[in-house]
Amino acid sequence: MDSKNLNNPVLGDMPVDDFRKYGHQLIDWIANYLEGIENYTVLPGVKPGEIKSNLPSDPPEKGESFENVMKDFEDKIIPGITHWNHPDFMAYFNSTSSGPGILAELLSAGLNVNGMAWHTCPAATELEEVTLSWFKKMLGLPSQFWGIIYDTASVSSMHAIAAAREQLDGLMLREKGLTGRKDVPRLRMYLSEQAHFSIDKSAVTLGIGLEGIRKIPVDDDFRMIPAELQKAIDEDKKDGWLPFCVVATVGTTSTTSVDPVKEISKICLKENLWLHVDAAYAGTAAVLPEMRWIFDGIENADSLVINPHKWMFTPIDLSIFYTKKPEMLKRAFSLSAVYLKASEKESTNFMDYGIQLGRRFRALKLWFIIRYFGMEGIRNRIKEHIRLAKEFAKWIDSHRDFERMAPTDFGVVCFRANPKNVVDDDELNTLNEKLLNEINKSGKLFLSHTKLNGKYVIRISISGLRTFENHVNSAKELIRKKLQEVI
Amino acid sequence: MDSKNLNNPVLGDMPVDDFRKYGHQLIDWIANYLEGIENYTVLPGVKPGEIKSNLPSDPPEKGESFENVMKDFEDKIIPGITHWNHPDFMAYFNSTSSGPGILAELLSAGLNVNGMAWHTCPAATELEEVTLSWFKKMLGLPSQFWGIIYDTASVSSMHAIAAAREQLDGLMLREKGLTGRKDVPRLRMYLSEQAHFSIDKSAVTLGIGLEGIRKIPVDDDFRMIPAELQKAIDEDKKDGWLPFCVVATVGTTSTTSVDPVKEISKICLKENLWLHVDAAYAGTAAVLPEMRWIFDGIENADSLVINPHKWMFTPIDLSIFYTKKPEMLKRAFSLSAVYLKASEKESTNFMDYGIQLGRRFRALKLWFIIRYFGMEGIRNRIKEHIRLAKEFAKWIDSHRDFERMAPTDFGVVCFRANPKNVVDDDELNTLNEKLLNEINKSGKLFLSHTKLNGKYVIRISISGLRTFENHVNSAKELIRKKLQEVI
Repeated sequence: MDSKNLNNPVLGDMPVDDFRKYGHQLIDWIANYLEGIENYTVLPGVKPGEIKSNLPSDPPEKGESFENVMKDFEDKIIPGITHWNHPDFMAYFNSTSSGPGILAELLSAGLNVNGMAWHTCPAATELEEVTLSWFKKMLGLPSQFWGIIYDTASVSSMHAIAAAREQLDGLMLREKGLTGRKDVPRLRMYLSEQAHFSIDKSAVTLGIGLEGIRKIPVDDDFRMIPAELQKAIDEDKKDGWLPFCVVATVGTTSTTSVDPVKEISKICLKENLWLHVDAAYAGTAAVLPEMRWIFDGIENADSLVINPHKWMFTPIDLSIFYTKKPEMLKRAFSLSAVYLKASEKESTNFMDYGIQLGRRFRALKLWFIIRYFGMEGIRNRIKEHIRLAKEFAKWIDSHRDFERMAPTDFGVVCFRANPKNVVDDDELNTLNEKLLNEINKSGKLFLSHTKLNGKYVIRISISGLRTFENHVNSAKELIRKKLQEVI
Repeated sequence: MDSKNLNNPVLGDMPVDDFRKYGHQLIDWIANYLEGIENYTVLPGVKPGEIKSNLPSDPPEKGESFENVMKDFEDKIIPGITHWNHPDFMAYFNSTSSGPGILAELLSAGLNVNGMAWHTCPAATELEEVTLSWFKKMLGLPSQFWGIIYDTASVSSMHAIAAAREQLDGLMLREKGLTGRKDVPRLRMYLSEQAHFSIDKSAVTLGIGLEGIRKIPVDDDFRMIPAELQKAIDEDKKDGWLPFCVVATVGTTSTTSVDPVKEISKICLKENLWLHVDAAYAGTAAVLPEMRWIFDGIENADSLVINPHKWMFTPIDLSIFYTKKPEMLKRAFSLSAVYLKASEKESTNFMDYGIQLGRRFRALKLWFIIRYFGMEGIRNRIKEHIRLAKEFAKWIDSHRDFERMAPTDFGVVCFRANPKNVVDDDELNTLNEKLLNEINKSGKLFLSHTKLNGKYVIRISISGLRTFENHVNSAKELIRKKLQEVI
């Protein structure tokens, strides 16, 4: 018998003693990885195709030893990893996992339940209900919000807009659809120029189309201007559009600006429009009493998305969706098969509230994280990230060669180099692009960028669980040094 | 200082020594769980609300010790778990996880990368390309299929239909959408009466509506009748519908029937319709040369979905989507933001091919599973499941009190009790419902049911990695015994 196959019998799973052995090895591997993560460069520095070229083009005929697979993981996969858990990963919305989150994912994979209906795993359904009720209390959200966990904010927002569409009475969209109909007016939805492009994708998916989206201008702080929203709605109504939905963003992706939800919500109430609030990143900040202002007016919103996998130490993916009108989701999505009709009328079947049937046990990691850190622990960490960002912003403001490009309310600072001797915006754009490239090429820091009013802007995002003051200080030093090098 | 908080400092993650300690404990917990899983009843036997009622209604203010959380996991969550990994879970498409799959999920949660674009994790993107190329070879699929991993089959099929819709030239659906247009005819898609209801959900989502779906009759073996498909298309065209898509199913959910893909594909070619093949469950069977017939004609299909989380020992979720026309997906879904535009023109950004932006590192578990079991190991296991199902079917056929209700090609057998003294179908339905309830109440076996031509039918599904001949024999014995008790 092939010795490689000794621990890989003809049938069944990996022998349990092997699982134990390799499991312990992997736990140590991850512990060592997290402990020594600063020995890696943040970005892997490989060329496109490089990782692929080191892997065989054919699958193995015979099973291989787990040792072999782990060795290749270390030798061939790790060199192509962008280290999202690295304390110097300060790009995008830096999302990090945490010990309790990782361990809960391990348990979830071990149990491998599919919580599509209540009876396919009662604990998965009920723990989802309990943790989403906890989370609501942690953030001071209205009690009438009903919650469900989806995978990503893109999917959460898609469901919000689907529910908004379903709400249009008399059109019977679920049954009749949108095609070949003379009785369905042109539908229009509204978002700010700074809203996330996932909303545009949702609009395409749902048959609203890109022209069915109207982008509302923002003020100097990148917040939707309510008067412009009202003007757009009035114009559209005159032109034969049927406005049906507004998406307000609490913490936009470029600058973390906060749309004035309260004023927007008043317009939505008056015009009978579904108000969806995209707080995927910034929502978690509402754990801090002093940050509750971001949800001023939220009681008038119809739906809300917040992603604990963005800023609450939760391994990707976990997106929380709240709505006051779950019946609209159910009206659109409760199509089921006889084999899933259970007798438990008094229980929730989450599959009736979304497009996905299969549902991982995601509530488990949320529960582990909330319990392990506690509300106090989560507040402390969020508060510190905001403090570090504000300190960084102060440094930018005080430095003659840099300027800040947006307000700093959360963990993100938008800035650019603006040395005295460069006056032309095009030249500044080139300079800042070069600066960012040099910073990222160093492997010591990973930042991202955006464009604001045609200006190339560098973004630093501080929301990593392993990011401390010394990392932010090193980032300042590196940015300063690299600027000297490029000018 | 509160002793509970000693291992839970004010900032940062769980201390790495604690991670190590609790990680080892959890590995042992899962090893013991899988080893002793037969000590649990398959179904948990709790009442709706019971799990919830044992959990506090408020989140904890202070962080708690990991021991506390684990203790509650064991005492309060486990009693509400439906044990999908149990060898006697033979309901639905019984999906089990495997050692290498669980360990790869652990690594994936530890790394916590988001593979949205190539540069956000080159290894995640390129390993996805490599493993999907492997999987294609394992199943003998055409090389021109391009692959992507989504979460669930529902989402994969939604993307297929979105691409089919996007393909309609001249309509500019991405830009103009579907509403308020006189130039978009009524769109119609076709599936068999036995197709999965997730396709209906996709149709609702995409604005096709339930009326935009036409269900084609099936033959006595529950396969779509191509002549009926042609007839429906002809009729619809006369009535002003625009046919645009056909969904053929390889392994329907109720009976695992296989639509004649080749004949259907000829109609699609002639009529210029997108052909999507839903092989979410049964596709994996094509690893066996003798089962390749299920994909006869697949070279004419435009897209295909297969879920390794259904029948290839992969922890939920992992759905593989192949298409010959990735450019249609890209046309619909490549909306991006400036901060994600990377310079790597020669690499794939999977976020451009779907609605979801955030992407877990799912390819890792597929890679671990293919390498650890090898093609041979996967073939052995799939072959054995089919053998066990056919043996069970023989037993049903030979038993005077039972009858088989559908052909048995894969791991599922459809049957019902039909004792000599009962002649009325209504009475038989009541009897079989009672029989199934008694079986499931026993906790020793979990089966599901379906309705076929008005008849209540019991389904047994053998696809679990821990399900062996002795479990199937015990199932026979229990079914026989319970029937004696209910008649």
